[in-house]
Amino acid sequence: MKVKIIVSYDGTEYNGWQIQPSGNTVQGQIENAIFLLTGEKVRVTGSGRTDAGVHAEGQVASFSISTESIPANKFALALNTVLPDDIKVIKSEGAEENFHPTRSAKRKTYVYSMYLSEVCLPLKERYALKVPTNLDVEKMREASELLIGEHDFKAFSSGGTAVKTTVREIYSIKIEKTGIDLSVSITGNGFLYNMVRIIVGTLLKIGEGRAEKEIITEMLENRKRDSGGKTLASKGLKLLSVEYV
Amino acid sequence: MKVKIIVSYDGTEYNGWQIQPSGNTVQGQIENAIFLLTGEKVRVTGSGRTDAGVHAEGQVASFSISTESIPANKFALALNTVLPDDIKVIKSEGAEENFHPTRSAKRKTYVYSMYLSEVCLPLKERYALKVPTNLDVEKMREASELLIGEHDFKAFSSGGTAVKTTVREIYSIKIEKTGIDLSVSITGNGFLYNMVRIIVGTLLKIGEGRAEKEIITEMLENRKRDSGGKTLASKGLKLLSVEYV
Repeated sequence: MKVKIIVSYDGTEYNGWQIQPSGNTVQGQIENAIFLLTGEKVRVTGSGRTDAGVHAEGQVASFSISTESIPANKFALALNTVLPDDIKVIKSEGAEENFHPTRSAKRKTYVYSMYLSEVCLPLKERYALKVPTNLDVEKMREASELLIGEHDFKAFSSGGTAVKTTVREIYSIKIEKTGIDLSVSITGNGFLYNMVRIIVGTLLKIGEGRAEKEIITEMLENRKRDSGGKTLASKGLKLLSVEYV
Repeated sequence: MKVKIIVSYDGTEYNGWQIQPSGNTVQGQIENAIFLLTGEKVRVTGSGRTDAGVHAEGQVASFSISTESIPANKFALALNTVLPDDIKVIKSEGAEENFHPTRSAKRKTYVYSMYLSEVCLPLKERYALKVPTNLDVEKMREASELLIGEHDFKAFSSGGTAVKTTVREIYSIKIEKTGIDLSVSITGNGFLYNMVRIIVGTLLKIGEGRAEKEIITEMLENRKRDSGGKTLASKGLKLLSVEYV
């Protein structure tokens, strides 16, 4: 049977989602937990990789397994008894045989979290990036609107991974400020390597007054990474959800 | 000169505020940082101890020092260069010689954080306690009102520390629910050992339907710990602020 799981993890201690020749990964921990429970070595497929240090609230993954001793909807409970504290399965259910977490995904939402402060705040540091207090958030919002729609996002990606096309569609970007907390939520049909971290880095550059919003349009046209902002630290990034319908 | 500092820390890795014969403490780290900066061995006095694992957003402390090479208001910046990432000084300033962080304190506010979920959520676990989703928050609010005012809070404390009196005054209790996040903020003129963790544990017992709000009145009268709720885990507790005027 095929089992679909929704996984939440604190990525701080992991070398990302995907199994590596060496290093501790989220996928590796889940495959190991399944093996401990069932004695079966299965491949767990995620909706996409998350990099080292990136978190997830609702990563989606699936695996095929022959055991019938654990019903699909009980896998969450069973896996959580053997998974480490920083990885938990929020939900499990049976899936159609043709369900594929990556190819079937229609929409993904990532959130990048920051806090406005002059001083490092230890209780924020684990999940958010410190940014200057004089940020112009309204300017960031205006700039973000230029990214909405279908564009060639090559300028907003790090090279290294071969992809068929660098065209993606962004459905919405929501920038929320509550007290000193600032978050940028981006929903799209898919994301290139480091795309969210570069987009938010570029919005930050604009919010700090080190660039005007026009660089967004230029980057979408000239497909050059150079004038964009930094690829922000992984700790601020979280895969919020993956939608399939 | 006397220097007053406001300190924020993630208490996860510490054996509490106060220096112990063995173990890593927040006070020890700050005294060590001052020694590294100035070569002076000083005693840092806090507004009160926080237990192992308890966090602080605005702990207040002070120390007397003879060096004049660092102005009082620059100590924050200087100390932060040598303090570990999970302890930072938010602000420093000169203080009157008779200022005493404990004795001069007028009001303290603690916050206890929880989240309503059936499953452990790795991104919440570090700073909050998982509680049942069917909590009756309104019942907790009603019960909390019985604690407001000056009372003998002996039933809401753990023994072990000698105190002159177990009478304290609670000025306000605010219970806020945002999505699945639940927090209880308590402001008072002072707190007994474990008082906040036992108060919230008792409110939780009531919210879970395992006791009625009348136990609060009973406990305040009979001064007996027995019928109260658990002393909740330290990770959910945070010293928010200490006020002096």
